[in-house]
This record gives sequence, C-alpha cells and structure tokens, in this order.
Amino acid sequence: MGGQLKIWCNTELNTATRERLRAATSSHELFLADKQAANAWEEGEVSEELLQADVAFGQPSREACERSSTLRWLAINSAGFTKYDAPAFREGLREQGTVFTNMSAVFADPCAQHILGMMLALNRRLLDSWTDQQHPVPRWTYTERRRQSRLLNGQTVLILSYGAIARRLVELLQPFGMKIFALRRRAYSEAGVHVIAEERLSAVLPEVDHLVNILPQNESTDRYVNARRLALLKPGARFYNVGRGTTVDQDALLDALRDGRVGEAYLDVTDPEPLPPEHPLWRTPHCYITPHTGGGRSDQTEAVMEHFIANLNRFERGDLDGMVDRVD
Amino acid sequence: MGGQLKIWCNTELNTATRERLRAATSSHELFLADKQAANAWEEGEVSEELLQADVAFGQPSREACERSSTLRWLAINSAGFTKYDAPAFREGLREQGTVFTNMSAVFADPCAQHILGMMLALNRRLLDSWTDQQHPVPRWTYTERRRQSRLLNGQTVLILSYGAIARRLVELLQPFGMKIFALRRRAYSEAGVHVIAEERLSAVLPEVDHLVNILPQNESTDRYVNARRLALLKPGARFYNVGRGTTVDQDALLDALRDGRVGEAYLDVTDPEPLPPEHPLWRTPHCYITPHTGGGRSDQTEAVMEHFIANLNRFERGDLDGMVDRVD
Repeated sequence: MGGQLKIWCNTELNTATRERLRAATSSHELFLADKQAANAWEEGEVSEELLQADVAFGQPSREACERSSTLRWLAINSAGFTKYDAPAFREGLREQGTVFTNMSAVFADPCAQHILGMMLALNRRLLDSWTDQQHPVPRWTYTERRRQSRLLNGQTVLILSYGAIARRLVELLQPFGMKIFALRRRAYSEAGVHVIAEERLSAVLPEVDHLVNILPQNESTDRYVNARRLALLKPGARFYNVGRGTTVDQDALLDALRDGRVGEAYLDVTDPEPLPPEHPLWRTPHCYITPHTGGGRSDQTEAVMEHFIANLNRFERGDLDGMVDRVD
Repeated sequence: MGGQLKIWCNTELNTATRERLRAATSSHELFLADKQAANAWEEGEVSEELLQADVAFGQPSREACERSSTLRWLAINSAGFTKYDAPAFREGLREQGTVFTNMSAVFADPCAQHILGMMLALNRRLLDSWTDQQHPVPRWTYTERRRQSRLLNGQTVLILSYGAIARRLVELLQPFGMKIFALRRRAYSEAGVHVIAEERLSAVLPEVDHLVNILPQNESTDRYVNARRLALLKPGARFYNVGRGTTVDQDALLDALRDGRVGEAYLDVTDPEPLPPEHPLWRTPHCYITPHTGGGRSDQTEAVMEHFIANLNRFERGDLDGMVDRVD
C-alpha cells in the first residue's frame, strides 16, 4: 500500500500530538480540517479534501465517505460507530475494499475500570458516605454503613455483549472470585467466563447480582433491556449501563427502581444525552448518573494518536490483517 | 488439647450464629456474656466466667486476661488489636503459653476492596459526578470529567505496611499494570511487589501517585505520616488512610491538602473517631471521609463465627501451628 497517501484528519489535536502526526506522516500529504471533531454523534462537514482523501482519520462525514471514490481507510477515533453502522454504508466500504477501523483498544480499559469503580463504590457505599460528609452536620454512620458494605466475592455478574470492554472487565474481576457470565450471539467456553447465547438469558437473569450492559446501539439492541427482562432479574440486583442509552427502556427501568426489582442503577449513558435536568432519572432514589465518562482518559488525545500511527505503519506496509480494531 | 473447655464469648451473635456456635461447642462449656462487644476499643467487663475461661472469644477485658491463670486461647474478633498490644501483656500471654489470634483473614478482603474502590472512584471522578447529580439543577459535565478521568495503568502505589490487607490489595491490583511498592521492616523481593525497608522510603515517595497507609497503631507508628514525609511525596499525589487515625499527623495533612502537595486524601480512619462534626477535615476541599467502614461486610457476624470455629477445631486437636491469624 506504499506511495504517498492523502490523509484527512479532524481528530482533536494538541501541540504535541500535532507534531507527532506531522512527523509520522511526513512522506504523505496531510490535511488538517479547520474544525476538530467534537464528538462521535455529529455528522461533520463534506469538504473537497475529505472527498479526495485516501485515509480519513477522526469523525469524517458519512456522506463524504459514501461519495468518495478514493477512500481506502476509514479510521474513526471512537469506539462506538453508530453513525457509520448502516448496512448499505458498510457494504459500500467492503465493495470498495476500504478498511474500517475504530478505537476500541483506546477506550476498553477506561470503560472497564469505570465499571469496576462503580461496582465497588456501590458495594462499599462510598457515595452514601460522601453524602453523609456533605450533610450540614457531617454524619459518621459507622454501624449502618458497615452492615451495608459488601464483598464482590461470590456475587454473580452478567455482562451484556462480550467485546473489548467486557474482556478487560473480566480480567479486572478475576481476583474477586465472582461468577461471571457474558452474553454473545454464540455461546462458547472460555477461561474465567461463561459465554452464553440469548436462549439461556432467562435462566441466568434470576441469579444475577450485577447486570452490566455494554451493548452497542443498533436495530437489534434497541430497548433490549426492557420490562420483561428486568422482571426476570434477581430482586434487588444492580444494573449498570455503559453501552448506549437507547439499549434500555428507561421508563421500564424507572418502574423497576421504584418497585425495588432493581436495587440500584448506575448509568453512564442515557437517552438522550445530555440527560435533560428535569428527567426523572436524575432524582429517582438509588439511581446514579455519570455524564458518559466511562471511556474518558486524561491522555485520550495521545492514546488516539498512538493507535492511529501504529495502524498507519501497518497500512503503509500492506499488513492489513495486522491492523488493530478492524470492524469491517 | 482435648477435653472440655470453658469458652467465654462476647462476640456479636444473631440467631443463626448463636445456634452454629452452640452446636460447634456442644462438648464444651459455653458462656455467653450478657453484653456483646460493641467495638474493639472498649475495655469490657471483668467477670468470674471470663476469669475462669480456657478460651475467650470476642473482645474480652484485657485486665481479666492478665489476671486469668486459666486462659489458653485469646481469640479476638477484630483485625486491629491495639488494646492488647502492650509488650508486658503479650509477654505474659507467651509465658503462660496462651495462643493469641486475631481475625485479619475476615477483614483483609473488605479493606482491600474498599481501598481499590476509593482509588477507582477518585480516578474516575465518581464522587464529582454524584455531586453534579445532586446539584439543584443536575449538571452533565461531559468534557471536563472525561479529561479528569484517569487509568490506574502505569501509576505508582506505595503501601505502608505489608500484612494481610496489603497482600490482598496487591492481588486485586495485579491486572492494572501498576508499579507497586510496600514498606516493611525488612526488604525482600516478591512477585508483583517491591517490598522496601524504611531506608528507601525517601527515594520512593517522590515517585508515588497513590500512598496507601495501612499502618497499625503502636508506639513506632504514631504520627508516622508526618509533614516531613508528606513533603517528599510527588506533588498532587493521593493519600489514603485505612490503618489507624493516630498514624497520621492530621494537621500536617491539612496543610498538605491546602497547599496542593497532597492532591486528594481519602480517610477511612481518623483521630479521634467518630470525627467531630466541626473538625476541619470534613470541609477541606479534596478530602473524602468514610466512617471506618473499610473492614465492613454485611456477613461479618457469620464470617467471624466461621473463622472462630475453624480455629477451634484446630485448637481441639492440638494443631496450634495450623491456627489462622496467630499474632503471638
């Protein structure tokens, strides 16, 4: 795949990563878009430079990618790729032989650590103690909090979807001695985790202490976590959402929180985002919300750049199979 | 060590554990004190039954243990044993051949999970998001929180003291790829952790992102974490105390928090306890307090009982070396 490439980029840059990118692409033609991508939801602008690019890095306009006859590698800088996940679009990429990569490897670890942090914070009642501390007269609730504090050991967790984040979470959970299930299209056995297919879901949900939803957004996952499935959960189970807000029927979740079927919910993603201030989830007892920070990492700009450059080196020498996070 | 034993007990019991204890001691003489031990700090009452016991289980009066000529096993139901840690008292036990056990094994795992929960909660800014949620108009601070969110990977942790809690913490931290140091009287090498002696402390403190204090309370640890040592820390490092409040010079910690030398502090233990509502630690920015809940576990009563009965079985058959958590 040698030769000079036209590389279009709208990923967020700082001084160091801009220099790093310029150095790594010095034998190519680099075009930096005026407007850096704010997030993975915006459609982005169609520009002549993008339409003529061999490589699009960041969050390029889907329309531009569709119209382009030159695009050989679409390198998006996020893990989720809802915007690009239409069957016709992806088929178009395949027909043109365009490589499509995301950046799961950048965001899997922060998401997994975020989930474990949430699980431990609830098990150890850390938020309750923080509330006690902020009380007008700070409260030292020794006996009550100790009795509410739990160990993860022996508890059961079910992870909905089994991709990069779930695999990392399973690694982090290994020392705790939990019973770990993960849902995938096809069941198979793997060390440390029971990978189940959907037909076993009804049998597993009644055992679950922690239901961790990492489902991506697409037609088959819309409102997947619904009233019927929540009703099957072990009473008082905890629910975590770090996938996409649309994969949960939030009204059903509100009902389940109110009647105690779901003991506590920790939502890092909601529908819509930002969650409007008047939305009832904000004020429902036992519901905790973080503003889609699961994948956040202070070194994101640098990590995204290193991921791109490592893949670029493979693309340059034609090692397409060695490229990380291919989703095509 | 066969034969009938007089077993005195003031550990907290519920219906199930009382029955479990009666069954396990049916061949012995069991005396249940009227007043169950509230905590590990109270001195407790001297009674005739305690003075004549072969085994004292719970939090017996130290004075009674000193005066007893029959005590063969002192089985305390806590991990900390400050009350019994006077040299003359412990020498007296040894002279009389009295076995002394605590319950580190019961409390190591909750403490270790508590510490990891604190580390992740701060790294992932979970308390900040909880504060945002409780704001009169809930705040969705996507960009700011994501930029503040960190990974444990590659960060350096130093654990002060290297006993049961620290060992368990090291196990839990293994998947994160951190650099782990632990302080002990004598340095040695062990897989996954650099165990250092005090002479290397000054060299290691400037590298530390997370300083985790698990020191027990005794003469040599009084105000161990002082202004001089805090000044050596990497600027902005986080400090955690899950040992004993007296091992920290809290005024020095307040100064270090105010001038930013210590970035954040998470205290599960304080001096005194409960921390008075007017104490400045409650309201100092970047200081988080939990009410000595590190060792808390909802199944504590059951876990304490199982620990005692397993040791009793060993004691009965004379397997003193096999008894868990001997501190004599």
